[in-house]
Amino acid sequence: MNTKVVLEYDGAGFSGWQQQVGRRTVEAELKRALKDLTGKDHKVYGAGRTDAGAHALGQVASFRLEGRIAVSKLADALNARLPEDISVVSAEAVPDEFHARFSARWRRYRYRYLDRRPRPALERGLCWHVAQPLDERLMAEAAAILAGRHDWTSFCSPGERNPIREMRSAKVAREGRFVELELVAEGFLRGLARGIAGALAEVGAGRRPPGWVGELMEARDRSQAPKTAPARGLTLVEVIYK
Amino acid sequence: MNTKVVLEYDGAGFSGWQQQVGRRTVEAELKRALKDLTGKDHKVYGAGRTDAGAHALGQVASFRLEGRIAVSKLADALNARLPEDISVVSAEAVPDEFHARFSARWRRYRYRYLDRRPRPALERGLCWHVAQPLDERLMAEAAAILAGRHDWTSFCSPGERNPIREMRSAKVAREGRFVELELVAEGFLRGLARGIAGALAEVGAGRRPPGWVGELMEARDRSQAPKTAPARGLTLVEVIYK
Repeated sequence: MNTKVVLEYDGAGFSGWQQQVGRRTVEAELKRALKDLTGKDHKVYGAGRTDAGAHALGQVASFRLEGRIAVSKLADALNARLPEDISVVSAEAVPDEFHARFSARWRRYRYRYLDRRPRPALERGLCWHVAQPLDERLMAEAAAILAGRHDWTSFCSPGERNPIREMRSAKVAREGRFVELELVAEGFLRGLARGIAGALAEVGAGRRPPGWVGELMEARDRSQAPKTAPARGLTLVEVIYK
Repeated sequence: MNTKVVLEYDGAGFSGWQQQVGRRTVEAELKRALKDLTGKDHKVYGAGRTDAGAHALGQVASFRLEGRIAVSKLADALNARLPEDISVVSAEAVPDEFHARFSARWRRYRYRYLDRRPRPALERGLCWHVAQPLDERLMAEAAAILAGRHDWTSFCSPGERNPIREMRSAKVAREGRFVELELVAEGFLRGLARGIAGALAEVGAGRRPPGWVGELMEARDRSQAPKTAPARGLTLVEVIYK
């Protein structure tokens, strides 16, 4: 039976989503739990290949569920077999044609900055400590330039064959003690969210004007971009299928 | 020079604030960092004796700063010497009569519940997983009964000589995926915040009506109270001195 699960995980202990030999990954843990539960190997598809260290509140995976377990019991059964830094938030039967990655319409990521001089202690694994004040209005102005269908060569990791994607929205706002960037796009090229987060930090810190982000995008040149923001500030919040 | 510092810490790795032989505590780490910085022993006063496992965003400590370090450099200097789960958020010189504990007028605590069946993964150390829906309106109604000057015998740990304190406000609201309780009181008796959090969970889960919290308070009988809520959901957010 084709099955969709929504996953939450703390990325600190993982070398990202995708299975790699000799590494602890979310995909491998999920497959191990499925095998433990059903005795069968499962091929698993993930909606987003989150980076090493990046978190998820709403990663989606799909697989053909083997064995006789009722889907209504699946989340509990998997959570009993998964480590504490992964949780299955929901599980449901889906039509055969559903594919976690290819059926996804939009992905929503959140990037969290802590913009004060003292380092964080309580949520130190969930934000990028920037150590100076960020002007979130300038960042929001720069982020708005990113909405639309663009070539993301300047922001993503090198080597993308097709660097064009639609960004539905890019917003920045202060949320409690953090500055938060929210990006909704049809797809996130490798390194894209963290590349954008790094560029917006330059604007927020006053080292570049908001319009520079548009110039950087148009330059299609990764070498002009500032350093990539660290993965611990990044969370895949939601995958949207409609 | 009399000095006030505001401290943030992740309580998971500590046996609470107060120094105890053979235990890792926040007070002991702060004293160790002060000794390392100045070469002198310091007597440190904390505003709230947070429990083992409880967190802080705004704990306050005061001490007579020894040595020649400028207070403007103190936060950085201490943060360079403190472990990553404690951070000095601010440091300032204060009048001689200031005492972190005795000068404090109000303490503000936050208690966070996650009320869904699947366990948390991402912020699992920062909430109490209740595993069923909580009705936050019923909890808010019950919390409102707690405002005022009361005898807290039913909610705090046994053995308090004077169990009467003023609760300025007690509020419950949904914040994102959490239900949050905010308590502001002149003082928190040992176990009080977690005792109240445990009682309100009974109301939220529908096992008791809101008015039961008032009856429990009036009974002045700890044995009638439900189990204490776990420390990991509790954060000392602010100490107010005016």
